[in-house]
Formats: sequence, C-alpha cells, structure tokens
Amino acid sequence: MKRNILIIGAGGVAQVVAHKCAQHNDVLGDIHIASRTVEKCAAIVASVHEKKAMKRPGILEAHTLDALDVAATKALIARTKTEIVLNVGSAFINMSVLQACIETGAAYIDTAIHEDPLKICETPPWYGNYEWKRREACAKAGVTAVLGAGFDPGVVNAYAALARDDYFDRMDSIDIIDINAGEHGRYFATNFDPEINFREFTGQVWSWQNREWTSNRMFEVRKDWDLPVVGTRTSYLTGHDEIHSLSRNLDVPHIRFWMGFGERYVTVFTVLKNLGLLSEQPIKTAEGLEVVPLKVVKAVLPDPSSLAPDYTGKTCIGDLVKGVKDGREREVFIYNVADHAAAYAEVGSQGISYTAGVPPVAAAMLIARGDWDVRTMANVEELPPRPFLDLLNQMGLPTRIRDETGDRALDFSDDAADEPVLARRVASGRR
Amino acid sequence: MKRNILIIGAGGVAQVVAHKCAQHNDVLGDIHIASRTVEKCAAIVASVHEKKAMKRPGILEAHTLDALDVAATKALIARTKTEIVLNVGSAFINMSVLQACIETGAAYIDTAIHEDPLKICETPPWYGNYEWKRREACAKAGVTAVLGAGFDPGVVNAYAALARDDYFDRMDSIDIIDINAGEHGRYFATNFDPEINFREFTGQVWSWQNREWTSNRMFEVRKDWDLPVVGTRTSYLTGHDEIHSLSRNLDVPHIRFWMGFGERYVTVFTVLKNLGLLSEQPIKTAEGLEVVPLKVVKAVLPDPSSLAPDYTGKTCIGDLVKGVKDGREREVFIYNVADHAAAYAEVGSQGISYTAGVPPVAAAMLIARGDWDVRTMANVEELPPRPFLDLLNQMGLPTRIRDETGDRALDFSDDAADEPVLARRVASGRR
Repeated sequence: MKRNILIIGAGGVAQVVAHKCAQHNDVLGDIHIASRTVEKCAAIVASVHEKKAMKRPGILEAHTLDALDVAATKALIARTKTEIVLNVGSAFINMSVLQACIETGAAYIDTAIHEDPLKICETPPWYGNYEWKRREACAKAGVTAVLGAGFDPGVVNAYAALARDDYFDRMDSIDIIDINAGEHGRYFATNFDPEINFREFTGQVWSWQNREWTSNRMFEVRKDWDLPVVGTRTSYLTGHDEIHSLSRNLDVPHIRFWMGFGERYVTVFTVLKNLGLLSEQPIKTAEGLEVVPLKVVKAVLPDPSSLAPDYTGKTCIGDLVKGVKDGREREVFIYNVADHAAAYAEVGSQGISYTAGVPPVAAAMLIARGDWDVRTMANVEELPPRPFLDLLNQMGLPTRIRDETGDRALDFSDDAADEPVLARRVASGRR
Repeated sequence: MKRNILIIGAGGVAQVVAHKCAQHNDVLGDIHIASRTVEKCAAIVASVHEKKAMKRPGILEAHTLDALDVAATKALIARTKTEIVLNVGSAFINMSVLQACIETGAAYIDTAIHEDPLKICETPPWYGNYEWKRREACAKAGVTAVLGAGFDPGVVNAYAALARDDYFDRMDSIDIIDINAGEHGRYFATNFDPEINFREFTGQVWSWQNREWTSNRMFEVRKDWDLPVVGTRTSYLTGHDEIHSLSRNLDVPHIRFWMGFGERYVTVFTVLKNLGLLSEQPIKTAEGLEVVPLKVVKAVLPDPSSLAPDYTGKTCIGDLVKGVKDGREREVFIYNVADHAAAYAEVGSQGISYTAGVPPVAAAMLIARGDWDVRTMANVEELPPRPFLDLLNQMGLPTRIRDETGDRALDFSDDAADEPVLARRVASGRR
C-alpha cells in the first residue's frame, strides 16, 4: 500500500488531478501540489475547497518547485512523505522527475512522452529516446513507473489491451480516434498549452503500418468517421505517443492515430506554419530583438484554462479495432464520451483536461491498492486493463463498446481472470 | 529651376526612384540617397551603376540619416545643395522631413500620408491630421510640397483631374481600382513593408459615399471587375490615402478605393488579425519578453525586395469614373498596366515598387522645370495632370483610356489649354 500524492504541474490537467485526488483522499492520503508558480497551485487548492471536493479532512498543500532540479524534487518527496508522484507538468520535465523517483523509491506516473525543448518529432519509437532507457534502473530500484497514463496515451492503451484480452484472437489494425466536438466560442484556441499542442504537428507524422514506421506530413491523410453521439467527423493522421509503445507491446500490423480537426484549426495551423510562426528557433526583428515565434503565438492565444466556463459539447475518444475472433472477422469500437459542461461543473476544467486528468488518478489508486504496483516501468497496455477501466467507470469516464451486436456500456460483472498473469508478465520485465 | 535631389529611404521604391533620377540627371542634377542604414543606400548606388542608368556623368552619393532628426536633415539638405527632397522612406517620417524642407526652402515630395506608429486609421480626412496643418507654413515660406505623388495616391489623383477636365461635365462616382495580377511564387508575401501593408487594413475602412465618410470593416464589401489585360478580378473596399484629398478637392458624391486580393491574402490576413498577430501594441511572452506581434510577423515574412527576380505578370491600376458629358451619361476607365518582369529588367525592382517609384521622379522633374513649382502645398489633383501623365508616358507608365468608343492610349497631341488656370488655382491657396 502506497500513500500520499505529489502532483507536479498547475495547469488545467493538474486542476482535474487535484480535484479527483481530493475526492479519493481516503485511499490516496495527503495531497501536495508543486509548480514553479506557487500561486497557481494555491488557486487549485482554493478551487478544491470551494467545491468541497475533499472526501475526508486531510492535507492539501501548495509548494514552489523547479522540477528540473532533481535534488529539490527529491527533498520535497522526502519532506512530504510522498509515495506516488503524479507528473502532469510540461513534457520537458519527465526525465528529471523520474530520476527523483528512482532515487527516492516513490512511484512515478506521467501522461505524455518526454520532450527536448529544441527537438521536434524525434526518431521512433519516442519512448526509446528517453523513458525506456531508465527501465532497468526502475526494475533494479523496485520503482513503479507507469508511462502515459492520461486518456491518449493511457485509456486508449487500456482499450487496446482489453481488445486483445476479450474481443480478438488476432488484431489486424487499431485506429485510435480522438474527436473533440466541443465549442469554446472563440475564433481559435488550443485546448492545452499552445506550444506543446503545435509542437505535436509541426514535424513529420509517424504511424505504424505493415509493421513499419511510416512517415507522412501533417494534414496529408484525411479520414471521416461515423461515431457515436458526435456523428460524422473529419480527422487527420497524426503522430502521437501511444503508437510508440503499442507497436512494441502488441502484435498488430497497423496502429494509427487520428485527431479530429475543424476547418478553422487546419486553416490557422497551415497559415502559421507556412509563415514560419510555429518555429521553435529564435528569429530577429528589424529592431534587433531576438524572439521565438512560437512563444509569441502562444502569448496572443487564449489561455486554455480560460475556455472552460463557456465550453459546450462532447468529446469522443476510442479505439476502432479490426481483427478475428473465433474464426470470424469483426470490428469493435471501444470508447468514451465526455461532456465539457459536466466536467466544468464538477472540477472547474473543460472536457479535454478532464479526460487527461482523471486517468492518472485512477492509476495512482491502482498503485495505492497494489493492483498496478509492479515495481518496474510499464506502459499502460502492459498492465491489467479491467481494474483501470472499472475505476474510471466510477470516476466519470465510463467505457462503451460498439460492435456487431450494438452499442452498450462495458460490463464489469465478469472481471477477467487473466489479469494476474498480465501483471506478472510486466513484473518479469518482458518487453 | 530647382535642381539636386535628396532621396530619403532605401527600400524597393527608393531603388526605382534612384534609377529614374539617374536616367534624368540632366534635368535633376546631383542625386543623394540617405537612410538609417547607409549600406542599403550604397547597394542602390551600385545597382544604378551596374545598369549604367546615369544619363550623363554626375554625382550619386549615399548618406546615413535619421530622418526623424530635423536638424540633421536640414544639414544634409544644405550640405548637398538639395532643392528637391524626395521622401520615400517610412510613413512615420513625413512631418519631420517636411519641416526640414519648410525651414530650408527645399521642395518636398512624398507618396503616402504621415502615420503615427501607435495609431491606426485615424479620423478622416487623414491629411487633416498632419500634412494640411502645415499648408499655411508652406505658402508663407514659398515651399512647394506635393503630397501623395506615387501611383496610388498620385497618378490616380491625376487621372481624376483629367476626367474632370476632359471627360466629364459632372462626375457621379470615382472607383479607384488597384489590381496586382502578378505571381511571386511564395506561399505569402507583401509587396512592400509588411508592417505598413498590414497597418492599412487592420482598422476601419473609410470611403466617401453620398458626400459622407462611411465606415466598413476590411473584406466586408467585395466587388469583381472586368479589366483590360488582367481580366476579371476580385477586389475589396479598402481605406486609402487618395480618398482623403479627392473628397475635399473634387465635387464627386462617391469616391471609393478597391484593392485586389487573392484568396491566400485574405486567408492569411484574417488568421493573423483574428489571432492578434497584427497588433502594433506590445505583448509579453510567458518568459516575460515584451514584443510587438506585428514586428515578429514582419520578421518571418519574405523581404519584399527579394521577390523581384521571380515576379511575373502585370498590374492594372486606374480610375473608373461615371458621370455626364454633354448631357449624356458615360463611363470612362483611365488606367495603366505595368509588367513585373519588365520593371525588374530595367531597374531591378518588381512592378509594385516601379509604379510607386516612377511618378515622384516625374513630379520632381515638373518642379525642376517649373510646371509644378507652385510654392505652396498641393495634392496631385490640384496640379495640371497632362504634363505629369505626358512625362509618365515617356518614363514607362503610359496612360490608357477605355470608354464607349473603345480602348486606346491617352493622346497627348492636343495638350489642354486650361492647365495654367489650374496651377494658378492652387497657387492662390484654394482648398
């Protein structure tokens, strides 16, 4: 049993994480929130109290922390008696925070792959460039490190594992589809940090096709999908974290990620990219001022957290899996639909932050309870999916299934018996 | 007879001005070019020599000058024995340069209205906010100041005066149409300083309708025209300098300006404006750096002068005038067609710079010859149009006429007899 949580980061996702930890502090224990700007942490603490989200009286504290400083992070972990670190800060700090966990024995959870600020779209698989290099160190130290435990990556990896376990003898393709059918009422805004958002799309698009890495340009490959609740939506082949672990951990020839974009997004992105305004490399103005264009674009765009109060509509994110079960071809869509306004009412954040912030708290609870405390590094698809999806079902992100027999909620009455096997498989270090 | 030219500015238009002055240095005398960056002036000098543009041996020199420094400008005027100052620098320096001319007695020519860097689209008529306030000072000092003597404003004002003198008893409307049907082969570029270009369109659009100032938004009013050579083209109602003097100096109920824009321009402009990237007001990045977004946009866009070598196609700019002559309704289009590649071959600049740079040199020659040396301030429509258009006809910008009898070159064989009257009208200070 591990207890006491340190949340690193203070953006929209951290806000959701804090609220959900508070709602489950009987399991999770003390809650600490740390970021460079302690005022942002304090605002989250205030928001948790305002919603009376603490399940029972307990510790909820804000701290100042530069998470790139491993010694400072270790000291804060020790001082707060933290046993589980929930890293939802910028993608640039993963390796520093992970190192602090390895050296202190605290469990580690994150929701996105580490990035180098000066590099974009590195060689696949991306996990191989950073996190996976510490796998042996985690195993040796007996440190549980769950990588990519947001929604995508995260829940969609669990959906893939569920498909493998329960719905297919052989999977031929996994298409992960992420549609935000919400409306924020602004001319243009990104749903999370614009800098990180645009960085996802300015390089090449990596997908796993015919068991090989395939490169495309952003907005080169388009596909319309007919989806539950949100209807027919346009998406584009996009590079994304989960492909980089699923391609290694599952035996599936085609794994692709499709992100929904409206016309407005495509237009704005295309103009900014073509003009050079999304560049992460500094330029000089006529007056001699050195400036990174992408940081100027970030500065003029709306703060993503400011969108929440007016956000309406729903998200639909899931895995469309094709393959064979009992000798017959089939197609199964495993998905969740989330509602922006409902998320705001519950935790003060919009739906994108909600889908990203609830799953890592579920992961923390599984580590606290022992189900996922595998004492090594693991991607989500290497861990038993049913307890995770069961928890999410209770925590606001229910799983639904659409197949040849119709559309229904995932049934948790017959929890699968093979999960201990999977947990053992990870614990033995299988890659 | 006035002689010796000081060109202020060293951009694409200044390059054309220098070449054309050199081609006519028998009339104009010494040629001096001054700007903050003397290297840019030196490059223009080199380009003039490379093309062997000097009509006869003479002085052609580069100087460093901050034209906002009136004393420095006066000193340079005195030192170079300049009698005609050709201001083709940024629109922010007009009032300083004009003041230096008033204090030294040198004639003044510019091609655009003065602008305050921190203001956009001021109250109409724009000339009333700045230049016209110095009209009395010019008259008192006997200083000739010809305002807006580029193509538009400039030649199109002369077209309007020609229509009044020769083609109409009563004018009901003047639609000035500016179409660039050229192709530079880039994703996006402006044809002159992006900062000045975008500033024209970010505020409200002022037009003169029913003898009143009327306000619209940019890209709100669209109109297609069927034009000579360039064919059917889309344009948008645009605020522009010439409306602000023509509405005062001519008795015409409707005076509008239409600028041609391709879809690409409209898309890029719309995105940048809506995001706030065309703002002239400083913002702060997350890192605390203060920066003006418009200056960052300018820095990432192609240098307009770099477009010239690859520019192909033509421009068509003119006045479509409707009214009554001898009791009959008529419609006359007075226009010029210029060719980008021909301009580059002759003076090393593209067609937009060519159309803007040749007319002020013609104006300088008319001042040198005495025709336009009115010893007061005048907009172009207050001066006799035929000698100006006659000179432009010889200098590379021929005037053509399209009316009910067909399409033909303007005939200079019967130069109008009423011109001395017009010149006197200006000299007497009529507004």
